[in-house]
Amino acid sequence: MAEQADQAEQSKRADHHGISRRRLLGTAGAAGAAGLVAGGAAGAFGAEAVRETPAELAGVGSATVPFHGEHQAGIAEPAQAHGHLVAFDLAPGADRKAAAALLRRWSATAAELAAGTAPKGDDTGIALDAGPSSLTVTFGFGRTFFDRTGLTAERPAALEPLPDFTADALDRKRSDGDLWVQIGADDSFVAFHALRLLQKQAAGTARVRWQMNGFNRAPGATARPLTGRNLMGQMDGTNNPKPSDPDFATRVFVPDRNGDWMAGGSYAVVRRIRMLLDSWDHLSLERQEKVIGRRKSDGAPLSGGTETTPVDLNKVEANGSLAIAGDAHIRVAAPESNRGAAMLRRAFSYHDGFLDDGAPDAGLLFVAWQADPLKGFVPVQRKLDRGDGLSRFLRHESSGLFAVPGGCAPGEYVGQRLLEG
Amino acid sequence: MAEQADQAEQSKRADHHGISRRRLLGTAGAAGAAGLVAGGAAGAFGAEAVRETPAELAGVGSATVPFHGEHQAGIAEPAQAHGHLVAFDLAPGADRKAAAALLRRWSATAAELAAGTAPKGDDTGIALDAGPSSLTVTFGFGRTFFDRTGLTAERPAALEPLPDFTADALDRKRSDGDLWVQIGADDSFVAFHALRLLQKQAAGTARVRWQMNGFNRAPGATARPLTGRNLMGQMDGTNNPKPSDPDFATRVFVPDRNGDWMAGGSYAVVRRIRMLLDSWDHLSLERQEKVIGRRKSDGAPLSGGTETTPVDLNKVEANGSLAIAGDAHIRVAAPESNRGAAMLRRAFSYHDGFLDDGAPDAGLLFVAWQADPLKGFVPVQRKLDRGDGLSRFLRHESSGLFAVPGGCAPGEYVGQRLLEG
Ligand code: HEM
Ligand code: HEM
Repeated sequence: MAEQADQAEQSKRADHHGISRRRLLGTAGAAGAAGLVAGGAAGAFGAEAVRETPAELAGVGSATVPFHGEHQAGIAEPAQAHGHLVAFDLAPGADRKAAAALLRRWSATAAELAAGTAPKGDDTGIALDAGPSSLTVTFGFGRTFFDRTGLTAERPAALEPLPDFTADALDRKRSDGDLWVQIGADDSFVAFHALRLLQKQAAGTARVRWQMNGFNRAPGATARPLTGRNLMGQMDGTNNPKPSDPDFATRVFVPDRNGDWMAGGSYAVVRRIRMLLDSWDHLSLERQEKVIGRRKSDGAPLSGGTETTPVDLNKVEANGSLAIAGDAHIRVAAPESNRGAAMLRRAFSYHDGFLDDGAPDAGLLFVAWQADPLKGFVPVQRKLDRGDGLSRFLRHESSGLFAVPGGCAPGEYVGQRLLEG
Repeated sequence: MAEQADQAEQSKRADHHGISRRRLLGTAGAAGAAGLVAGGAAGAFGAEAVRETPAELAGVGSATVPFHGEHQAGIAEPAQAHGHLVAFDLAPGADRKAAAALLRRWSATAAELAAGTAPKGDDTGIALDAGPSSLTVTFGFGRTFFDRTGLTAERPAALEPLPDFTADALDRKRSDGDLWVQIGADDSFVAFHALRLLQKQAAGTARVRWQMNGFNRAPGATARPLTGRNLMGQMDGTNNPKPSDPDFATRVFVPDRNGDWMAGGSYAVVRRIRMLLDSWDHLSLERQEKVIGRRKSDGAPLSGGTETTPVDLNKVEANGSLAIAGDAHIRVAAPESNRGAAMLRRAFSYHDGFLDDGAPDAGLLFVAWQADPLKGFVPVQRKLDRGDGLSRFLRHESSGLFAVPGGCAPGEYVGQRLLEG
């Protein structure tokens, strides 16, 4: 009851800001900037998906992504400028009940922060003044969570450990975890504030196992909405499944089979992938473009056209060679090369300074979303591992696979159907 | 000559963007957000200091801070949303000539990037599409630079090592350095791009000694321009010297004595200060406010008024106690308590994950600017070290002191008067 009153309070606040809406993902970068250029990009998503922000209120701070809904926030929406990925392990003795209480606390706080209301009681104040800035908080369960909470019988088959890949050089301490939280916001203080509160609320129940910080381009840094780039300089996200695709939901979200607790959820594969930027930068522009199969400047496929032109994997150049090389990343990764396997990539870049040899400790916090990892990440990474021209410039340094339940309604918490099922 | 042509090209580009201007620092946060809310904050700095951005071009990406000028950029302008601090050591055998060539390359690249023109030749493309986003690049020399380049006679007395402070727990590997570069931009890719190019241009001449990443609130995250906060939640920067103060230049910049190579320059004290956030968060709001001497919500001094009301250090409460406690940070640090000693604080917050004990590895990349460290940082830190209520919650983990020469004109490079003097 008290929680419902809070909900009403939140909606009021959201209405006051005039922008209670859930942004949906078009080309990854395009929608990311849409908050600042209301009107410019709406056509790409369909009018019903995006409620426009009144121009006079538009701004980084005022944009909100509601926490409650069929799916958790932070999956179909464009990735924000700042991200924190954090895995927790349950403390010794923390049982199913303690985990349920934690998820209840976490969900309540995430909902408040996403709506731009200050959390009740203990607060650090570091995000005072700032609006919610498109904050999303997404919760997931790792394989080990289920044994520790006596829920082994509920563990989805999809959480079987990922196979080993030949190129893996995984740091186990920065991999896996009982619980996983993904935080994103367009303001660094808003994102850190959420991280700090959730970590404090975990005290006694769960401890940070690993934590990583990532970033994307700031909204408004480009003159018009554009697909974002990664630290290799490529436009990244072009050929992602789009919410307007007829098969988007089938690919990304778990279907509802008899009210299964994962209905409406998704599986997140998280890989910390370091880029060997020094070797990469030694390649000529032409070689770099061949490795990917797209032009660096504008993301157009080497088979011709513009960024959004469908890739023609069969196109042959006048000299008889394939326009998109045999080991080009977009050929090897394409659904056509993997019996339709597809995933939604929603990544953050990272840069943690320099390694002892002077190379940047930088790359991609790769997060791939799919209804079933065995029909998404796994077959594609198997193929990339063997045949991708890009893999010579990458090091997979950590890995995680998490079951991310569907979203919850006001008054409920994420994972409730599992934990009280 | 070729360089002058480039300059003309750059000005054209800046004019095209319509926003060739050098933002000046009012209260730190206020001006930071001014780019997005043109018109709102101009009064605070004086109309002549800020040329307004035409509303239709306003945006994070399009704002520029010219590289050339009497002073280097990145001192008097508000701190940006993203910062990289990086120190280099000269490679064995790199002499004065090699250092001069490096500063020439660096200055040329910094000027191009600040103006939003793509650097010639080798580029990584990671900031393609994005505007300059208020990029500034600032160069300084550490004490050790002078011996290594045979310039010992030119070493300013002000570069004497800082005294030891009792609370110091300094990591020497993350302290000092022959050369120091401060990069700031309101877009993460623009900032990283600059860092990456400068590091590559140093190859063979200088190697990264340490590198740190910091952040401030995103422009536009608040509904109106406000002083920024730090990770303890306080408004930070309120009582900074302001460009409109009559003694601003005297406090911050080295005066021109017979064309000394440091004329128009400044000394940067760089301290990585970890915050003991877990202990801090255990204090009640009232205790936290007493430790600083200002209200957390709005930054108003505990002696009354609003954020901008002058502090009354002598005010006594009805119960006979001082309104601003004897060990309050703003009392101990104030110029009045230190024979007028003052500095311009222009910091970035940092957060590098969690330490082994679960505490956040987070705090302030404190950068203080002054005409003379012996009349700025040193006496104030001596006093804080003994008597500051805040120091119990801080760990000074690294330290650097750098001589930052004046700015240069088009065709010149930073440090030219030293290196060719
Ligand atoms: C740091 C590592 C990686 C980088 C820099 C990278 C970069 C790119 C780029 C530039 C594109 C083309 C633009 C686009 O459609 O987004 C792309 C496409 C794609 N990538 Fe990656 N990628 C990386 C890792 C991976 C991994 C690990 C997977 C999956 C196992 C993957 C799967 C895909 C897929 C499915 C596409 C779309 C292919 C198509 O249908 O056209 N990528 N990637
Ligand atoms: C993490 C460490 C620190 C934190 C969190 C911090 C925080 C603050 C805050 C909240 C204020 C009041 C608002 C303002 O005027 O900006 C302030 C003022 C000030 N701080 Fe610090 N500070 C830190 C370290 C230092 C250090 C190392 C120095 C110099 C050695 C310093 C010098 C000053 C000065 C001069 C003032 C203005 C005092 C006045 O005239 O009112 N601070 N600081």
